Amino acid sequence: MTGRTVRRRVQRVTLPDAGGPGGASDRADILAAEEPLGIRVDGTAISMTMRTPGDDIDLAAGFLVGEAIVSSASDIAGIKVCDGTTCGHVDHDELGNIVDVTLAPGVTVAPGARRNFLTTSACGVCGKASIQDICVLPEAGVAADPVRVQPAVLAVLPDRLRAAQRVFATTGGLHAAGLFTPDGELIVVREDVGRHNAVDKVVGRALLTGRLPLSGCILLVSGRASFELVQKAVLAGIPLLAAVSAPSSLAVELAEQAGLTLVGFLRGASMNVYTWSHRIATTSEVAAHSGG
Amino acid sequence: MTGRTVRRRVQRVTLPDAGGPGGASDRADILAAEEPLGIRVDGTAISMTMRTPGDDIDLAAGFLVGEAIVSSASDIAGIKVCDGTTCGHVDHDELGNIVDVTLAPGVTVAPGARRNFLTTSACGVCGKASIQDICVLPEAGVAADPVRVQPAVLAVLPDRLRAAQRVFATTGGLHAAGLFTPDGELIVVREDVGRHNAVDKVVGRALLTGRLPLSGCILLVSGRASFELVQKAVLAGIPLLAAVSAPSSLAVELAEQAGLTLVGFLRGASMNVYTWSHRIATTSEVAAHSGG
Repeated sequence: MTGRTVRRRVQRVTLPDAGGPGGASDRADILAAEEPLGIRVDGTAISMTMRTPGDDIDLAAGFLVGEAIVSSASDIAGIKVCDGTTCGHVDHDELGNIVDVTLAPGVTVAPGARRNFLTTSACGVCGKASIQDICVLPEAGVAADPVRVQPAVLAVLPDRLRAAQRVFATTGGLHAAGLFTPDGELIVVREDVGRHNAVDKVVGRALLTGRLPLSGCILLVSGRASFELVQKAVLAGIPLLAAVSAPSSLAVELAEQAGLTLVGFLRGASMNVYTWSHRIATTSEVAAHSGG
Repeated sequence: MTGRTVRRRVQRVTLPDAGGPGGASDRADILAAEEPLGIRVDGTAISMTMRTPGDDIDLAAGFLVGEAIVSSASDIAGIKVCDGTTCGHVDHDELGNIVDVTLAPGVTVAPGARRNFLTTSACGVCGKASIQDICVLPEAGVAADPVRVQPAVLAVLPDRLRAAQRVFATTGGLHAAGLFTPDGELIVVREDVGRHNAVDKVVGRALLTGRLPLSGCILLVSGRASFELVQKAVLAGIPLLAAVSAPSSLAVELAEQAGLTLVGFLRGASMNVYTWSHRIATTSEVAAHSGG
């Protein structure tokens, strides 16, 4: 595993009409690192993702939550970065880009898991696939989670997330995911070139520290909300997903079905609440809250 | 296939201190559509991607270019949206979310193709994988492409791309990819919830209209430049990839090896040139060009 950033020389080009004579000059630049990470379960490779190195154990654990393969720390008997002893390839130039997971007895990579569906389904997703065909969600979803959140709490989360991003400030190249309490306290933040990886790292950390399901928690992502992120949130037991940018249609549809409160365009003093809006306190309640 | 956007009611919440009394109100919102698209080659499902409906044939064709399975229109004997006759499932509620591709005689899904590597490699990417292990690129790359581009031409492309984005304006939720001539003329623009899909749609359109390899062309993406996008550009024969945001370390590394000029942070009157900068005309040349 290498670092989270990579230094590199870059040619900075400015146009002559940009308030100066313009020109080209060499300078140092810092890039967000991107490298492949393989995830192997009980000896079988099940995924490769391009990720920013760091928190790889968390990433692998969170990935397995998002695939509905594990749901608690006890489902995992062992998880470690490969040191060559498993695969026997001890002559690799560098180790550290693969994580080996051993599942607890009785836990298996379910035949219905998403990855398997994609390769074994006879008919693929011919026609308009139902959501049930393309994801694996617990039937109850998170509809029963009673948490309620003040809009004023949500409004400050993007600033808190950005303040906690260490790598973005130097590279401008990373997505972030942050887990918060209903009162807006930051529990954990993770960054990655891939937004799904950032969420996996957050969820995996929670899993490995025995915090799943994440009842009452708020997950904030720095970009857009896709179908995939909604699925990951629900599988982690999170009742509220907020995104700085837009959600997709399928993200909203899945959130509606799964009982997840989905907030988008969380910017400044406003936000859009797409689903299960009862968890967002109304303005009159806000006034009462302030007055109390 | 449904539309590219979906209408939905949304609750708009504003805080009391945002210049008004604040409150919550229902209003109509337009979302970027996201639905699964399956790609089947010679009857075998090889991929499912979450995409914005539209230009699905182009998307499938471009995906196959990016997997190094096809490189010209003649490699494809047939490509169509599934109507149920192939799979026999004529009782599907809705058709249109799968594309069937028939390869020309002699063209196969190569054993070395990336998708296969991921599932069949015994050791995954244990250790620091070499780029050769995780992608399939022509040896020569695009290093020999003699195109040179004026910085002033590059600087106006983001505005041209945005102006051509029809769906983003209404949803705020789509990535875009645009293909331009060296003089900055827009050839084709495509939008999608996934940036890799937007690029696949652009490349697929070019393939199916007999324009591959895209020598001398500029590909502009609205977001960041990942390893995956560099790979797609090189396989399409594109010598210059420009991104509005940051590239990742692996994007730069692959671009360097493949002879691709990679431009990042293309904003306003400046840009960073990460690799093969000789294709960007220097300021003195710009002055001479303007004066001539």
